[in-house]
Amino acid sequence: MTLTHTLFEALDRVPLVDPHSHIDPRSPASTTIADLLGYHYYTELAHSAGMPRERIEEPGISPKEKVARLFEHLHHIDHSVQWSWFVELSRELFGFEGDCIDRGNWRDLYDLALKKMSQPDWEDQVLRKSHVERIFLTNDFDDPLDDFDTHRYVPCLRTDDLVFNLAQPAIRDRLARATGVSVGTLKDLQSAIGSLFTHFKQNQVRACAISLPPWFAPRAIATDDESAQVALKRLVAAQDPSQADRETIAYWVFWRLAEFCDDMKLPFDLMIGVNRKVYPGGVYQGQDLYDSRWSMIQYSALFNAFPRVKFPISVLASVSNQELVDYAWIFPNVIANGHWWYSNTPTFIRHDLQARIDAIPRNKIIGYYSDAYKLEFILPKYRMYKRILAQVLGETIVKQHGRSESFAIDLGTQILRGNVDSIFFDQE
Amino acid sequence: MTLTHTLFEALDRVPLVDPHSHIDPRSPASTTIADLLGYHYYTELAHSAGMPRERIEEPGISPKEKVARLFEHLHHIDHSVQWSWFVELSRELFGFEGDCIDRGNWRDLYDLALKKMSQPDWEDQVLRKSHVERIFLTNDFDDPLDDFDTHRYVPCLRTDDLVFNLAQPAIRDRLARATGVSVGTLKDLQSAIGSLFTHFKQNQVRACAISLPPWFAPRAIATDDESAQVALKRLVAAQDPSQADRETIAYWVFWRLAEFCDDMKLPFDLMIGVNRKVYPGGVYQGQDLYDSRWSMIQYSALFNAFPRVKFPISVLASVSNQELVDYAWIFPNVIANGHWWYSNTPTFIRHDLQARIDAIPRNKIIGYYSDAYKLEFILPKYRMYKRILAQVLGETIVKQHGRSESFAIDLGTQILRGNVDSIFFDQE
Amino acid sequence: MTLTHTLFEALDRVPLVDPHSHIDPRSPASTTIADLLGYHYYTELAHSAGMPRERIEEPGISPKEKVARLFEHLHHIDHSVQWSWFVELSRELFGFEGDCIDRGNWRDLYDLALKKMSQPDWEDQVLRKSHVERIFLTNDFDDPLDDFDTHRYVPCLRTDDLVFNLAQPAIRDRLARATGVSVGTLKDLQSAIGSLFTHFKQNQVRACAISLPPWFAPRAIATDDESAQVALKRLVAAQDPSQADRETIAYWVFWRLAEFCDDMKLPFDLMIGVNRKVYPGGVYQGQDLYDSRWSMIQYSALFNAFPRVKFPISVLASVSNQELVDYAWIFPNVIANGHWWYSNTPTFIRHDLQARIDAIPRNKIIGYYSDAYKLEFILPKYRMYKRILAQVLGETIVKQHGRSESFAIDLGTQILRGNVDSIFFDQE
Repeated sequence: MTLTHTLFEALDRVPLVDPHSHIDPRSPASTTIADLLGYHYYTELAHSAGMPRERIEEPGISPKEKVARLFEHLHHIDHSVQWSWFVELSRELFGFEGDCIDRGNWRDLYDLALKKMSQPDWEDQVLRKSHVERIFLTNDFDDPLDDFDTHRYVPCLRTDDLVFNLAQPAIRDRLARATGVSVGTLKDLQSAIGSLFTHFKQNQVRACAISLPPWFAPRAIATDDESAQVALKRLVAAQDPSQADRETIAYWVFWRLAEFCDDMKLPFDLMIGVNRKVYPGGVYQGQDLYDSRWSMIQYSALFNAFPRVKFPISVLASVSNQELVDYAWIFPNVIANGHWWYSNTPTFIRHDLQARIDAIPRNKIIGYYSDAYKLEFILPKYRMYKRILAQVLGETIVKQHGRSESFAIDLGTQILRGNVDSIFFDQE
Repeated sequence: MTLTHTLFEALDRVPLVDPHSHIDPRSPASTTIADLLGYHYYTELAHSAGMPRERIEEPGISPKEKVARLFEHLHHIDHSVQWSWFVELSRELFGFEGDCIDRGNWRDLYDLALKKMSQPDWEDQVLRKSHVERIFLTNDFDDPLDDFDTHRYVPCLRTDDLVFNLAQPAIRDRLARATGVSVGTLKDLQSAIGSLFTHFKQNQVRACAISLPPWFAPRAIATDDESAQVALKRLVAAQDPSQADRETIAYWVFWRLAEFCDDMKLPFDLMIGVNRKVYPGGVYQGQDLYDSRWSMIQYSALFNAFPRVKFPISVLASVSNQELVDYAWIFPNVIANGHWWYSNTPTFIRHDLQARIDAIPRNKIIGYYSDAYKLEFILPKYRMYKRILAQVLGETIVKQHGRSESFAIDLGTQILRGNVDSIFFDQE
Repeated sequence: MTLTHTLFEALDRVPLVDPHSHIDPRSPASTTIADLLGYHYYTELAHSAGMPRERIEEPGISPKEKVARLFEHLHHIDHSVQWSWFVELSRELFGFEGDCIDRGNWRDLYDLALKKMSQPDWEDQVLRKSHVERIFLTNDFDDPLDDFDTHRYVPCLRTDDLVFNLAQPAIRDRLARATGVSVGTLKDLQSAIGSLFTHFKQNQVRACAISLPPWFAPRAIATDDESAQVALKRLVAAQDPSQADRETIAYWVFWRLAEFCDDMKLPFDLMIGVNRKVYPGGVYQGQDLYDSRWSMIQYSALFNAFPRVKFPISVLASVSNQELVDYAWIFPNVIANGHWWYSNTPTFIRHDLQARIDAIPRNKIIGYYSDAYKLEFILPKYRMYKRILAQVLGETIVKQHGRSESFAIDLGTQILRGNVDSIFFDQE
């Protein structure tokens, strides 16, 4: 057994807490493979390879028809890492035994999966096979949080709408319904946000989270800032508020979120770098891209102002990884968090992880999260990561530094699991 | 035989269509090795290593004298990948058998090469040994295209002059001569450009191409835009037109080119990122560098506006590669194209190619082009690429994903050749 | 013996001249391991891992107490490359034989090291074991340079204070004391700087050096520029001069430095990319970070204006490395210099070095410098570099290009040592 394999085997046995996902706790597992192939990674790649959006998203088509249509184009991505996830989960979870999955044999797989997914304990089976104990969610701010097991499915307050979308009446209506506060002034808004935090805190929330565009550069704005007060009035009154007012309110709300995280001892996950709707003609969730020209220095005021708040940070592009490494090397409250979205491919994971292991304190590296929408994806995504982690640990820690295998396994275990515990659960 | 070697052998047998070169179809092969060592890769490196430009470019020196002088400095680059191309082509094409080529033995090589190059079928020999069937050119907009074999040498309409240099009277004169239209108004310009496209289309053109500076951010400008009309008038009248007018016309012309590509079903090769004449004291063609701070997002309006136009895109620096990968992952009309200029070295090719193979649909990766000025360079440049491709396929597809060798060879063949056919030749 | 090992053994025997350090020539070696663990790499990482600054920097604690406190947190970095330097130097210089150094055994190491460091010839021992012949310093502009061996400790005029801190009265006072010139006008300033260069030149200076922030973009300013004259007057008179005046003077002084380097045939080391005090709450020397959004193109006016000045250039982040490679490929006066600070970790060194060896003339790559504050760090830092150099040469030069081991060793020796001689010592 090679060194890499030995390390992988040990790491693969570690029980996981997945610190970021989009799992719906009311429907965590899939009912057909249409739920899996409907994941935007596949629809957007099929579309990119030539499949019209209309054909993918035609309303009313059956799950089986959707899968049949997708397979007309999925051979264009049969070499990709995204496809390897689907093949691996089909083998490990459904018992699929073929070499490849294609137009010729997908119906067998469909039925095989359907039988498995129909079993009443399918959710438990998937979690058990994936060695997953707990999974963080991405909860809307108005999620009642009262109809699922918050031990297994850990609430995480997602705040994009509060920061960026308060100009939309629908968002303000949802905020009013969730909090009983109809926002007219900054004081109202402060109070509404506070009651969201209280509600989440009462329901075992373990993180606040947000995704941020490249241009965002948080700045301190006082709770009663005059210009923000005026901006909010215009925002609430106007049909189409100015970009300047939107940004003022975005910065105001963001700073309040950091204050509440400080008060409530909540880590604040920052996922930095995405531009929304760059390709409005794209499929659902397949429209976002980015401008990689931003810098961690945009967040220096934030990191300086909130030394007690832990900021687990994900960056969208690998060119930002060295800045993340170096800010985590210097700032005690900056933590490197996973490999996000467009950087969640082996080439970038390997490069970024190596740099992190070289130089960041070992208690400040959160190795991975699945970002999954359905439980079935946790297994293959984590497996991909664990293979790379085993390889990097073998090369760096064992071969270069001459440390023992058990030292490497301890380090890997801390990166995979231990730091999730200490960062999200040991703070009170 | 190792896996990498097996894959390389298979890929090395694939007949090539080289989708971008600067070959002169009236004089495609070299007559002495001065033609090869006069390639700017060597003159600029010799100059960078300490050789005065004046000594390299002294008018009237013989080919042999030029080579003799260059060898006074070429030992400074005998470790470089650029030099490895010259050594490999000398072995494969001239039958050179030594270990190294230096001040001590270049005269023998000169004579050896001269003998080969003097053979009447030298061009055919080179193409045969290089497994090259067809080669794309870089044609000036006023190229008559009537005195070479456009099957072997595929016309490609190069448009830098139309977009960036219309302020020069000499360019407008050439345009007038080529089209019969003397440009005074936007309508004239539209008509002149249209007749160029028609002429190229009648002569088997297969792509329109342009190289672009980092600041360029195409925007929609109407055919009859008022401010562009005014800008064009000033451009034509003024001695030294303003930068603003130049840019307005650049954006206007560029948008028209995209429209004509759409009408004529021509792929539009974008080579993005070069600043011209950053080092005006440099040797011929050795003066251009770049500012790597640009983003693919500058082209989002273009990609959205022309969904039917295929945009094979090359980026100058490896830090732009992930954006290229991700825009090709999302936009159906964005295609990753080769490894351009300063990124055409093994370290960057390997990194960039791995990321592309991880995540881009396989029908949207054009592996390589030679960018060669003389036929002899096609062989060693493609060999370098094929070695890296074999290595990446072996590691990624065979070892990581567990696919078969024949699957990897099929994928590699599609990347090397198949996609050139489907993207440039299957569109009508 | 593997290829990499053979190459490493050969390279490890090369006598070194270290072209950049912060060694204090009046106290070059350590007196206890507190001098080593007090290096900002360890204090900032211990702080980042959770140790309060106040506990690290409490005034009046003994060296032993300082070390004891640090070991409460150093286990958080026991996997890091920075820690591997300390372990390696402990083995090689102190004869430490354990596997790891931690809270349980550091006292033994402390005593072991103390015994060694107390030997009267410790400085010589360290240099001998490190194969170091000469070491460049970082001298304040007012260093008398008259109380140490300038053959062993090579003076280097560090100019950050002159360019960026002339607004501080204390700096102007030091300048007045060092030169006898009290700066009121540009002419005074020119004369003061001139006398510094003369003083350094008389004391065997071999380089002028400066670290620069990302926003810096040198521009030609005439010696008697009117607006600079006015800016200097305000700078000298004002309590708190404007940022604009500070920048005008910074650019004025910088251009003068380049002129003096030209006159005096001194290489001008540029270390580009650092923002100072991004984290003002950090430990001593652990407050600086950066914004990676800058470009070598900001220096094109400088490189064009001073073709005879050699500019050995270090960049802070690996994303700038390709620009450095390509500017060194084109500009004769641009030289790639070492792996600086946040890029001095194996992942980035390997990536950056490979790209440099691919494409830069071999006489323009200065492989490495230690940046050390104490002599003991030179050995492990250079060892790390030499291991990577051996690996890269083995893969690139021997395996890819098929050159001999001795060719690779010659190249490695030139990169490690030869170019330091030719660039800094052969110019007169």
